[in-house]
Amino acid sequence: MRIGVLTSGGDCPGLNAVIRSVVHRAVVDHGDEVIGFRDGWRGLLECDYLKLDLDAVSGILARGGTMLGSSRVQPAHLRDGVERAKGHVADLGLDAIIPIGGEGTLKAARLLSDGGLPIVGVPKTIDNDIAVTDVTFGFDTAVGVATEALDRLKTTAESHQRVLIVEVMGRHTGWIALHSGMAAGAHAIVVPERPFDIEELAARVGERFEAGKRFAIVVAAEGAKPREGSMAYDEGGKDIYGHERFAGIARQLSIELEQRLGKEARPVILGHVQRGGTPTAYDRVLATRFGWHAVEAVHRGEFGMMTALRGTDIVMVSLAEAVETLKTVPDERYAEAECVL
Amino acid sequence: MRIGVLTSGGDCPGLNAVIRSVVHRAVVDHGDEVIGFRDGWRGLLECDYLKLDLDAVSGILARGGTMLGSSRVQPAHLRDGVERAKGHVADLGLDAIIPIGGEGTLKAARLLSDGGLPIVGVPKTIDNDIAVTDVTFGFDTAVGVATEALDRLKTTAESHQRVLIVEVMGRHTGWIALHSGMAAGAHAIVVPERPFDIEELAARVGERFEAGKRFAIVVAAEGAKPREGSMAYDEGGKDIYGHERFAGIARQLSIELEQRLGKEARPVILGHVQRGGTPTAYDRVLATRFGWHAVEAVHRGEFGMMTALRGTDIVMVSLAEAVETLKTVPDERYAEAECVL
Amino acid sequence: MRIGVLTSGGDCPGLNAVIRSVVHRAVVDHGDEVIGFRDGWRGLLECDYLKLDLDAVSGILARGGTMLGSSRVQPAHLRDGVERAKGHVADLGLDAIIPIGGEGTLKAARLLSDGGLPIVGVPKTIDNDIAVTDVTFGFDTAVGVATEALDRLKTTAESHQRVLIVEVMGRHTGWIALHSGMAAGAHAIVVPERPFDIEELAARVGERFEAGKRFAIVVAAEGAKPREGSMAYDEGGKDIYGHERFAGIARQLSIELEQRLGKEARPVILGHVQRGGTPTAYDRVLATRFGWHAVEAVHRGEFGMMTALRGTDIVMVSLAEAVETLKTVPDERYAEAECVL
Amino acid sequence: MRIGVLTSGGDCPGLNAVIRSVVHRAVVDHGDEVIGFRDGWRGLLECDYLKLDLDAVSGILARGGTMLGSSRVQPAHLRDGVERAKGHVADLGLDAIIPIGGEGTLKAARLLSDGGLPIVGVPKTIDNDIAVTDVTFGFDTAVGVATEALDRLKTTAESHQRVLIVEVMGRHTGWIALHSGMAAGAHAIVVPERPFDIEELAARVGERFEAGKRFAIVVAAEGAKPREGSMAYDEGGKDIYGHERFAGIARQLSIELEQRLGKEARPVILGHVQRGGTPTAYDRVLATRFGWHAVEAVHRGEFGMMTALRGTDIVMVSLAEAVETLKTVPDERYAEAECVL
Repeated sequence: MRIGVLTSGGDCPGLNAVIRSVVHRAVVDHGDEVIGFRDGWRGLLECDYLKLDLDAVSGILARGGTMLGSSRVQPAHLRDGVERAKGHVADLGLDAIIPIGGEGTLKAARLLSDGGLPIVGVPKTIDNDIAVTDVTFGFDTAVGVATEALDRLKTTAESHQRVLIVEVMGRHTGWIALHSGMAAGAHAIVVPERPFDIEELAARVGERFEAGKRFAIVVAAEGAKPREGSMAYDEGGKDIYGHERFAGIARQLSIELEQRLGKEARPVILGHVQRGGTPTAYDRVLATRFGWHAVEAVHRGEFGMMTALRGTDIVMVSLAEAVETLKTVPDERYAEAECVL
Repeated sequence: MRIGVLTSGGDCPGLNAVIRSVVHRAVVDHGDEVIGFRDGWRGLLECDYLKLDLDAVSGILARGGTMLGSSRVQPAHLRDGVERAKGHVADLGLDAIIPIGGEGTLKAARLLSDGGLPIVGVPKTIDNDIAVTDVTFGFDTAVGVATEALDRLKTTAESHQRVLIVEVMGRHTGWIALHSGMAAGAHAIVVPERPFDIEELAARVGERFEAGKRFAIVVAAEGAKPREGSMAYDEGGKDIYGHERFAGIARQLSIELEQRLGKEARPVILGHVQRGGTPTAYDRVLATRFGWHAVEAVHRGEFGMMTALRGTDIVMVSLAEAVETLKTVPDERYAEAECVL
Repeated sequence: MRIGVLTSGGDCPGLNAVIRSVVHRAVVDHGDEVIGFRDGWRGLLECDYLKLDLDAVSGILARGGTMLGSSRVQPAHLRDGVERAKGHVADLGLDAIIPIGGEGTLKAARLLSDGGLPIVGVPKTIDNDIAVTDVTFGFDTAVGVATEALDRLKTTAESHQRVLIVEVMGRHTGWIALHSGMAAGAHAIVVPERPFDIEELAARVGERFEAGKRFAIVVAAEGAKPREGSMAYDEGGKDIYGHERFAGIARQLSIELEQRLGKEARPVILGHVQRGGTPTAYDRVLATRFGWHAVEAVHRGEFGMMTALRGTDIVMVSLAEAVETLKTVPDERYAEAECVL
Repeated sequence: MRIGVLTSGGDCPGLNAVIRSVVHRAVVDHGDEVIGFRDGWRGLLECDYLKLDLDAVSGILARGGTMLGSSRVQPAHLRDGVERAKGHVADLGLDAIIPIGGEGTLKAARLLSDGGLPIVGVPKTIDNDIAVTDVTFGFDTAVGVATEALDRLKTTAESHQRVLIVEVMGRHTGWIALHSGMAAGAHAIVVPERPFDIEELAARVGERFEAGKRFAIVVAAEGAKPREGSMAYDEGGKDIYGHERFAGIARQLSIELEQRLGKEARPVILGHVQRGGTPTAYDRVLATRFGWHAVEAVHRGEFGMMTALRGTDIVMVSLAEAVETLKTVPDERYAEAECVL
């Protein structure tokens, strides 16, 4: 068989592990040929690819990023390209395409699958917000990086009697905030799913100081928002470049909490560090299993499907189902964190 | 309510996180009182305990080991002590006991539960071999430590054109070997579940060198054994102290492989490093959830049960069921590792 | 003897190691008594202290922050307090005070020393900008944290064909930028000591892309500034809180470079993570040696002095000399980095 | 100019950083050509080499091991090969050779230098036992790995009320033991420079338990030995393969201490993990500076010399001087560790 692989969307630790696993399983065990398209869908649309044999994937297992590169393509652009993609697939004699990507990629994958292309998807998102799989690879690494940072920040906050507001990834869901906050013992966690009340948050942090504690750590998902009316919310202005000047929930919260509590409050924005670098062992194992099972699905002809983790098993779910709903943090999980507003 | 907690059996990252979580949930949310027995069952039998309030568990979340200490008790000794334990429980006015421990502890817990004590268990084993839960805390940390060591050893092996045989924990099951071996891209993994053939193993490693590679990494669970007759197996002699002189599969394999391959082979035994120190974020979250749900089970009166992870949910399973079977590595999981004999 | 210890100024990994070392050497070996003033000079001025015996410092060696707390005191306030401090020292029967701190603290120490107090200082700054010592503890940890982040960011930058501008600590000197940039192989490093020319910087990064590379990493010390006139420099405006809206060299550089190069450029600001948490082994050893030698100096009656590292030796230098000049990055060190503008 | 580089002797984190630095400085700044001999002196003797340009060294800065490979060559063999080496150097038109290696390599370098070859050495040893340089790269990484392991082991030892004896590298000198022991707060450190008295060691550890502590950590350099007559010392026997059965100071100490103290004692042997993998930022900077200055020395024609660190400066010292004396741990440094017998 001939299989094409591509990675699309944001960077995520474990992408290389999937690519390596696909090549190992397909080439060694099945005697397949594998090619990799460069820079995601662009590579498919422009027929830009390289051959992937064992040597090509040697040493990439523990490396962050993606050896194939990634880029974002407009859905409209992709829609117009379905026929072109089919042409390339026919020309290259491909029996299957394995796109590895997040929500946008999986929607694109479904589009191409509906258009007749033989597709087996592999889900990828550090946000962990795909409902049909228990976990996605990359999430554990992101939570690990955030937790290590929080561990470090605790001693700083304590020595200086400060409130630190730490902004972690998560535009639409609060999984990284929830897990890293639980793991590091944060004193409050705010997430997009539950608009917070600034007075409540300040009260909660204030109580901590009243109980004699000398510092507090608040973890804020980047998409967290105040309950309407609870807090002046700076929509930002423009700087001399015409760029937005002020953005970020952590900065706003640090100002609002400092005003209310009379304690120094400082924002820390973890940013891209969460999505780069060596994946954790957990993510490498999950990514490797996803790659292996994607190849198996190709050989069974299960197209229009995607790999997913359920308990300890890898199962196949339909791409249609995969993109239907976002997995948000349910109330019971909030409760367990013991510190969510 | 009054709840007693204890930790028993081998050290495991995450024990303190469970203790902290029990105290947070019970004391803060339910207004319970919590005490901790010192050094496992010994503390219960000898009524040796300390009060656990919020201050007592402050700062322990990320710490390895167990603040309560641990020790091993002979089952017979425990059996004789059931009445004594019941007496202490009555005297202390305890409504429940939450023992946190591995197979031996859970068996003891069942014994006491059958004897009439109100018990909710929390499973703990870095070996991940308890069948009724998807994962146990501590396992992820152990795999992470082993993987980091394997990552380091790869460059050493490569620079010196060596075979390294790395012995990881796992007397009865090969989960740590399997996961760390997959995560680090080991070239062979041997586990207790599948006695290996030394000729097959040597052939496999030899092929790698013939293909032009300069090194090989073999991961061996400490309980891995050769297929009967396949390899001379040193039963060991006595040294001047009367102790066994020679033990360990990694040492034997390094000698056997060096003889067969004519390549330098060296053993590395990771040992206790795998079970100590700061737990990973994953283990802290799982341990925290187990503690929270154990308290909930106490309040619902679900005794004779134990917390377990199923997919993303924490569920309760009976202690009787919990200790019935060992979770061994199934064949498909071996196949996914792509490098198991 | 009776010795008082205090930590003052910004948080720095290794502070606890110094405190522990002072206590171990003084109490165990010399039979001294040691007390710790709370929150830096404030503790001395207000006679707020705790007794430090072996138990008090148990387990703090690897912990970030300072168990004694820290705060900033206005020099004027301290000047007025010299007599009060002397009174407390007399009342407490102290034979020496060991203040651990940065430039401000050492200046204060000198003031008090000139005022007649028996003082032996220990220098502390993660910036490594004290000229009379080869290195200060905390610096190695900060460089390590920054380097690990840079390692992670490289794969992200590469996968997305981006320029990442990473802001590290260093308001007046570029040591952290220089060392972390060298360690991680950054493609350009900008530091306060050498105002950069934005066109030159853009040209340098541009050449890299022209040579076929897919990404670039620029490390910027927070105090780095453009050569006058070379770049529009946003002085910032006010947001709705009256706070400055726009600050930070990394943000500005990302905009300026994106405009010039036509490549996505993104800022990453590492912030407080660099100064918190577990110190590296290097910093723990240096801090421990500083503490040990500070006690020795006390016993030799060498007051008005400060510990310093020279080669592999710990020597004593006068506080007067210590605060005279800032250690800036010399030209040859820039040249070695092979990537400094 | 044309420069040849080679790495020889045991693996050491930072070797690749030196190679990369030599290439960057020589090729980019001086317009030189650089070649790398494979597997140390063997490559030179057999004229086995590869061209090293910027692409060849891309991405190796943070990688452990050596991209050039390494091997050990018998001095006699090398002595016979001097003329052959000179012939290859002439044939290849090399203006200088930069060997990177430890004591053996530097002795060989001196031999070749005395024989008329233009040599600039770079010292390498994780043991840090070369007297003419303050530090060698690789040492900081080894100490870091050992310290992290010790941090982890402490919690295990504490939970189980054990003595752990941790064996670290150092056959002839105790630097790794001293620094990692200080960094982790070990309770005793034994090193080759000072044969220990087992009764004294046992007494010291015993006192700790008597003072109410629940565990103890002993760090032992692999070359540590008992004072003659103080302890039965197992010379080992043979196993069924004819290999030595019993070796290692940690194992012996664990047995001896367990017998004397009546406490569980366990050996942990860190082994090769200490010398592989990603170098610390400190080692990457030092290695990079060594490489840069070696190229400068070549261009100044300073042959028969070697790079060395003195304070914060890189200086050149003669190879003759370099190999004269071993740097052993002096008494004052022992004293600072506060826990050395």
